[in-house]
Amino acid sequence: MGRIFTFHNVRIVSHASVGGREESRGPLGGLFDFHDDCNRFGAKTWEQAEAAAIRMALTFALKKWNKKGLPELLFAGDLQNQCMASAEGLLPFEIPYFGLYGACSTMTEGLLLASIALAAGGVTSAAAASSSHNAAAERQFRFPLEYGGQRAPTAQWTATAAGAYILEKGDTGVRITHGMAGKLVDGGITDASNMGAAMAPAAADSILSFLAETKTRAADYDAIVTGDLGEEGSLLLSVLLEKEGVRLTGHRDCGCLLYDKQSQDAHAGASGCGCSAAVLSAHFLPKLVSGEMKKILFLSTGAMMSPQSTQQGGSIYGIAPCILLEG
Amino acid sequence: MGRIFTFHNVRIVSHASVGGREESRGPLGGLFDFHDDCNRFGAKTWEQAEAAAIRMALTFALKKWNKKGLPELLFAGDLQNQCMASAEGLLPFEIPYFGLYGACSTMTEGLLLASIALAAGGVTSAAAASSSHNAAAERQFRFPLEYGGQRAPTAQWTATAAGAYILEKGDTGVRITHGMAGKLVDGGITDASNMGAAMAPAAADSILSFLAETKTRAADYDAIVTGDLGEEGSLLLSVLLEKEGVRLTGHRDCGCLLYDKQSQDAHAGASGCGCSAAVLSAHFLPKLVSGEMKKILFLSTGAMMSPQSTQQGGSIYGIAPCILLEG
Repeated sequence: MGRIFTFHNVRIVSHASVGGREESRGPLGGLFDFHDDCNRFGAKTWEQAEAAAIRMALTFALKKWNKKGLPELLFAGDLQNQCMASAEGLLPFEIPYFGLYGACSTMTEGLLLASIALAAGGVTSAAAASSSHNAAAERQFRFPLEYGGQRAPTAQWTATAAGAYILEKGDTGVRITHGMAGKLVDGGITDASNMGAAMAPAAADSILSFLAETKTRAADYDAIVTGDLGEEGSLLLSVLLEKEGVRLTGHRDCGCLLYDKQSQDAHAGASGCGCSAAVLSAHFLPKLVSGEMKKILFLSTGAMMSPQSTQQGGSIYGIAPCILLEG
Repeated sequence: MGRIFTFHNVRIVSHASVGGREESRGPLGGLFDFHDDCNRFGAKTWEQAEAAAIRMALTFALKKWNKKGLPELLFAGDLQNQCMASAEGLLPFEIPYFGLYGACSTMTEGLLLASIALAAGGVTSAAAASSSHNAAAERQFRFPLEYGGQRAPTAQWTATAAGAYILEKGDTGVRITHGMAGKLVDGGITDASNMGAAMAPAAADSILSFLAETKTRAADYDAIVTGDLGEEGSLLLSVLLEKEGVRLTGHRDCGCLLYDKQSQDAHAGASGCGCSAAVLSAHFLPKLVSGEMKKILFLSTGAMMSPQSTQQGGSIYGIAPCILLEG
């Protein structure tokens, strides 16, 4: 079916999420498997705290998995330079490892690649994980927190969160029935304080391609969920889709769900690999299990940029791989 | 077969390599599809030069591919923060994209994932590419070239090079018959000037696992090729394997092949994602095509670290995914 992968009996059999202080204070705060109010997760540095968070997420997912032993493959990545949170955090499991970099799209990229690996037939279980940490991201991409820089109204708050998933072929658990890799899309945005605008064109491109190739409409899904477009990006997405004649019914954005708009000063919403990684586990998968929702088109959204590329005047590219989740 | 993927009719049907000045002066200099003596590849910054190099590599591979159109998937990654060389360089192709981070192991990681995607059956062609640039890596990981820092004897020279590969299921071309993901291995090395020592334990782990799971011996292969252990890492690899009773016959290291030891001041040899990416295409695949070699176990070797992780006293982890290439 063109760009679309079709999967048979690929299931999410276990999953877990962890969050930091702001995440635990938000509307989904009670739904995480663990939260740490000091954001340190027992580690000495912010970078190592993120490594500890992703390790905890996978530890919880393994604990809830009704198997002994370990998944046969692990797909993971994060925002840190050279993706060190994943490498450092997940090394102790000694699971054969594929490092990914899809910026904030990494969670869906990992779930899609884990599904492809299961479909290829060489393995019977695979895990995927991703994370982000506000303080690690701030000092890497912007300024250390101590600098106290003013944030733009379009800026998003990088989530301190992680999610981990275990997939198997089988008869129980939420199914991943289809998937599609994203294309890199250059919307011409160079403002690193407006990631939502940089990612919206990629989300639009992926949603339009998926609907066209599967001959479905937005209304055929209980929800079309984006990773971290935030308020700015979500608005732009609906405008871009309306120009193509698609009315985006049932759109939810993980970045708009994680924090409370009135009481938490998150500006345009949440962002970071950990945002969609944690919200899928804490909020959406339980709805598919309970039957409240039956079909979710899920797209994590990534903004491909580095401090160097921005300093050199380069565009921020968007990418949005997607998976179709069925209860 | 345990950790090992077995592939049927997965073939490398086209490939290309490009290099910079030092690479073109080395023993393999005449074998690249293109080289640029000023290392700029037409771009204004070193980071953009690397993007141009990986774009050129894929352009040459596409030109040599006897098909119209484009591969259906693209797996790529590099050493730059947030893997921007791959994103920027490969965006214009508009191929559905999976971003990878496996440090200098990325080329084999990409070839392995492309093989897995072909085995999963949803696509009929997939590409993989990787790159590195000496000047971009120096200023990101060490100091800008202008600083003129002294290099340690164990240090390697990050190659300015890129390689690109197109894979299809079919009856012609070099076969990828097996593959295995690498495990993250912590050898306790914290010296960022000794990547060879950091990667050797991972290479040893992968070679031992592959030989054990396939019930083969090192002598069963015309060559066991590592990516960029350099002289220090290659020596350590043979010591580590001998301790386990394995005599490493037919070992070649791309990092020891790229520069001339006498006339080029590369210290312990070449490194970087582009090293194994270019040497596989320029040197080894032609030997498999000509029949000079029949079976090569190929492992790119990655050192997972960031400037931040090193500054915080963290270990440099090694990883070494592998593929079995048959002529």
